[in-house]
Amino acid sequence: MTDHHTYKKIEVVGSSKKSIEDAINNALAECAKSVKMMEWFEVTETRGHIENGKVGHYQVGLKVGFRIENS
Amino acid sequence: MTDHHTYKKIEVVGSSKKSIEDAINNALAECAKSVKMMEWFEVTETRGHIENGKVGHYQVGLKVGFRIENS
Amino acid sequence: MTDHHTYKKIEVVGSSKKSIEDAINNALAECAKSVKMMEWFEVTETRGHIENGKVGHYQVGLKVGFRIENS
Amino acid sequence: MTDHHTYKKIEVVGSSKKSIEDAINNALAECAKSVKMMEWFEVTETRGHIENGKVGHYQVGLKVGFRIENS
Amino acid sequence: MTDHHTYKKIEVVGSSKKSIEDAINNALAECAKSVKMMEWFEVTETRGHIENGKVGHYQVGLKVGFRIENS
Amino acid sequence: MTDHHTYKKIEVVGSSKKSIEDAINNALAECAKSVKMMEWFEVTETRGHIENGKVGHYQVGLKVGFRIENS
Amino acid sequence: MTDHHTYKKIEVVGSSKKSIEDAINNALAECAKSVKMMEWFEVTETRGHIENGKVGHYQVGLKVGFRIENS
Amino acid sequence: MTDHHTYKKIEVVGSSKKSIEDAINNALAECAKSVKMMEWFEVTETRGHIENGKVGHYQVGLKVGFRIENS
Amino acid sequence: MTDHHTYKKIEVVGSSKKSIEDAINNALAECAKSVKMMEWFEVTETRGHIENGKVGHYQVGLKVGFRIENS
Amino acid sequence: MTDHHTYKKIEVVGSSKKSIEDAINNALAECAKSVKMMEWFEVTETRGHIENGKVGHYQVGLKVGFRIENS
Amino acid sequence: MTDHHTYKKIEVVGSSKKSIEDAINNALAECAKSVKMMEWFEVTETRGHIENGKVGHYQVGLKVGFRIENS
Amino acid sequence: MTDHHTYKKIEVVGSSKKSIEDAINNALAECAKSVKMMEWFEVTETRGHIENGKVGHYQVGLKVGFRIENS
Repeated sequence: MTDHHTYKKIEVVGSSKKSIEDAINNALAECAKSVKMMEWFEVTETRGHIENGKVGHYQVGLKVGFRIENS
Repeated sequence: MTDHHTYKKIEVVGSSKKSIEDAINNALAECAKSVKMMEWFEVTETRGHIENGKVGHYQVGLKVGFRIENS
Repeated sequence: MTDHHTYKKIEVVGSSKKSIEDAINNALAECAKSVKMMEWFEVTETRGHIENGKVGHYQVGLKVGFRIENS
Repeated sequence: MTDHHTYKKIEVVGSSKKSIEDAINNALAECAKSVKMMEWFEVTETRGHIENGKVGHYQVGLKVGFRIENS
Repeated sequence: MTDHHTYKKIEVVGSSKKSIEDAINNALAECAKSVKMMEWFEVTETRGHIENGKVGHYQVGLKVGFRIENS
Repeated sequence: MTDHHTYKKIEVVGSSKKSIEDAINNALAECAKSVKMMEWFEVTETRGHIENGKVGHYQVGLKVGFRIENS
Repeated sequence: MTDHHTYKKIEVVGSSKKSIEDAINNALAECAKSVKMMEWFEVTETRGHIENGKVGHYQVGLKVGFRIENS
Repeated sequence: MTDHHTYKKIEVVGSSKKSIEDAINNALAECAKSVKMMEWFEVTETRGHIENGKVGHYQVGLKVGFRIENS
Repeated sequence: MTDHHTYKKIEVVGSSKKSIEDAINNALAECAKSVKMMEWFEVTETRGHIENGKVGHYQVGLKVGFRIENS
Repeated sequence: MTDHHTYKKIEVVGSSKKSIEDAINNALAECAKSVKMMEWFEVTETRGHIENGKVGHYQVGLKVGFRIENS
Repeated sequence: MTDHHTYKKIEVVGSSKKSIEDAINNALAECAKSVKMMEWFEVTETRGHIENGKVGHYQVGLKVGFRIENS
Repeated sequence: MTDHHTYKKIEVVGSSKKSIEDAINNALAECAKSVKMMEWFEVTETRGHIENGKVGHYQVGLKVGFRIENS
């Protein structure tokens, strides 16, 4: 057994019509389909596109950190 | 007809007593009074002032991108 | 009486299971126990940890500015 | 007569199917329709969208500096 | 009556043969000709050109924030 | 059907003896072999190595964004 | 006796109606009331608010470094 | 045969109880299990957690660049 | 009992004649005299002064995060 | 013989009426008159001045790295 | 005769007991002893050391740009 | 005699098979051959190349500050 771990970070962009928090959770839900042991996220940018003068979708860039299996 | 467009970005600060999302929408609503064809926004800073130890207003800096007419 | 003030900024990290705004208010509530005359905050980072593929806690870094007493 | 000038910077995004330089010139041509005395530009970002696995358009962000008239 | 305001930021460059402070005030004086309700400024860069081995002009980049009328 | 998408960004470095644009297209051509639905790129750095006092290769760092399938 | 020291940095904002240098000295004078052994400062931001189209106060952000006593 | 290559960068975090260099090598050793032709690394952040007032683990963020096979 | 915590970050500079790691530990040892529940650190800068053409002292800037008691 | 080298970086600005690539090569050609063993360059900024509403010259900032002789 | 020039930037730190402007001019006066054709400067940092709770010296980092002779 | 000094910064990259500290000292040893009165260094980047899945050389970018003679 090792006394240290190694982690990987991937960068994703989640989107939502409702809120910044919802865009984050949508991105995590998508990641959870293929990545195990996700541990933390870091927001890298918050933006969105505009429809009819209002927010159409929030688009939130995230780095998602997870432990590499067996590391 | 051209095969490219040119966009302009303006920088605004929206504010709200309620939420970050509401501050963004308040800023866009104000921009929509004078700007057409707004397409996207980028959050540049999130701050606020404090009243009685609580958030008084969220103040959210945005760059708003729109297509220049006839470009 | 002076015609200028001096301010101090401290850096804190608030957390919340609910939302980014709630994490900010949790941090301010904690600061308010020991700091008077808080005037503004600046968000420096937004991150969180993940539990079961969902946001466990939002963690929001803030600089909180307050006037130094008698300055 | 004054011994100094004041300049304004505006931020635009030019696009082109051909090249980064062409995107810059497209943006300047559009600005020249409404702005006089443009003096310099600074590239702030270079990006683009992708069509069929190739660059569709280059999109080049610029700050354009011009002297304010009569300043 | 609304409980929030919206602000716009414009970016200008002031210059002066004398000092950094003078360059800032020259820029604000120029802005004041066309903008009302200016509230704050942020220095974004300090530079200058050199004549005969001495500072010829200080050139100070500023973002100037003002409240959008009726917002 | 969902009303939002999730995107992933990967970071690559393309190179070319000819031009910056060519280095970008070389990188995209390589990505297109394994990634579908690429939508946009962002240039993160431009550098190169030097041979005999001239540019040997342009090396252009890119983040490439694509939609995650079925998201 | 130790062959090394440890320093602490605090972040303050000084203000002045007169000049940037005066704002720095006002901040240091305030710090000197409670901190001993201040050694250096780093300017982190220069801004101000505007009154009647002129600089009202310069506001200068500083990090102030001092040696921790007995370190 | 082509006259250029394409590289990919992945982002990992290595950790070690001993040193920053050891954390870097632990991360590379883990990457080497699945990635061939690794060529360079760039340190993006150095941090760690604290146990009993001492460094528990150094945590070093790295971008690792490798050549895409057959590119 | 609450379901969230609040953390504070302080900024210190550790120094050492030996190594970067030793400078970090010297800073933490000094902090441990007055701060409880330190949890993590982030390196913000690495520098040093030079004596006789060699490193005299490494000087390592750190942000140290700790939980605010009873938060 | 040593098992390591030391490199120096100098910062230059090349210019060209034609293209960004040409400005880079003009700068390298100038450096090659006095510097041997140039190995790589990093673009630090891309700007230019404007003549008659079009790009007059591209001005490209570069850091140029070369091996120190006998190092 | 060529239609373009090449410039070099050097980085210096000027100091002064009096003001930021004086520190800039002190640095330029020193550079003028060995460099011809200096054209512009860019302030990169403003700091200083503290004596008896007041500014001892302002220390201003500058990049100084000059045209390479015969370029 | 003057009451102020002027400093110059040069940028170098040291390398070492052993450690980050060793790469710094290798760079300083090389600088010491031609520069007198070196006073401080600032680490600007830490990277390296990889051989057989391990660190081949650490490459550490430094700015080295020294007093200009007779300044």
